[in-house]
Amino acid sequence: MSFPARTTLPEIELGKTLQPKFGPDGLIPCITQDISTGQVLMFAFMNAESLGHTLKTKKATYWSRSRNKLWVKGEESGNVQWVKELYTDCDQDVVLIKVEQTGSANASCHNGYKSCFYRKLADLDSADYALEYTAERLFDPATVYKKK
Amino acid sequence: MSFPARTTLPEIELGKTLQPKFGPDGLIPCITQDISTGQVLMFAFMNAESLGHTLKTKKATYWSRSRNKLWVKGEESGNVQWVKELYTDCDQDVVLIKVEQTGSANASCHNGYKSCFYRKLADLDSADYALEYTAERLFDPATVYKKK
Repeated sequence: MSFPARTTLPEIELGKTLQPKFGPDGLIPCITQDISTGQVLMFAFMNAESLGHTLKTKKATYWSRSRNKLWVKGEESGNVQWVKELYTDCDQDVVLIKVEQTGSANASCHNGYKSCFYRKLADLDSADYALEYTAERLFDPATVYKKK
Repeated sequence: MSFPARTTLPEIELGKTLQPKFGPDGLIPCITQDISTGQVLMFAFMNAESLGHTLKTKKATYWSRSRNKLWVKGEESGNVQWVKELYTDCDQDVVLIKVEQTGSANASCHNGYKSCFYRKLADLDSADYALEYTAERLFDPATVYKKK
């Protein structure tokens, strides 16, 4: 899978052709947002293969750095993310996808939450860095992911 | 500036203490979202110093990899991002800040757009990877950033 080559800075920043910058490790960061609510669901990486697979199938497909393999989101859990829009940023070294998430639990996170960002600092001024939950658990991971 | 040390996986993923994971380069990815609209404004990196500075001043402060220095957003352009909430993800290797952006232009992007994500693929199925603009320019960069 190949994408248009990087050209000049003005073309990259203001032009009208996708010229994604994959890092030295072949990866580009990807932010995934719920297209209806704008909630950020997760953050992961893509390589050229997963970006190509995403566009071909419309299923959000990442590169799992821990498993070192293509990661079709929802393959195991059923919580597929259907890609509706794909943005890039000014210097084209990040992509942002807007998705419609499906599946019985409608959860992005392997811990059973809609979004991976389910905790925030309780108090920005506190010195103890306490987190508070901002979401309810939608499923029990033990019942969704089978032990292998 | 130091943050609580990383402990166990259950504590990191489900616990109630911020234990940010800075990568081998000392950086953690940061997604910046408009707290009112949910729009993703930008994506950048923080190191421990910039995360500390962000919490202390409430001004979003990143680490500029190109300039290799602390980057207080809006220092030059006046478009300060006031941090209202700070989230982390399941494995605490990403932060997400929700901000109120101020300044005359109210633009995050050095190219003069509200968000750095001002272009999207015109057609997910197209083989030419054409981008289309989704936003209007709010200022002319030449008038805001003085040549040095």
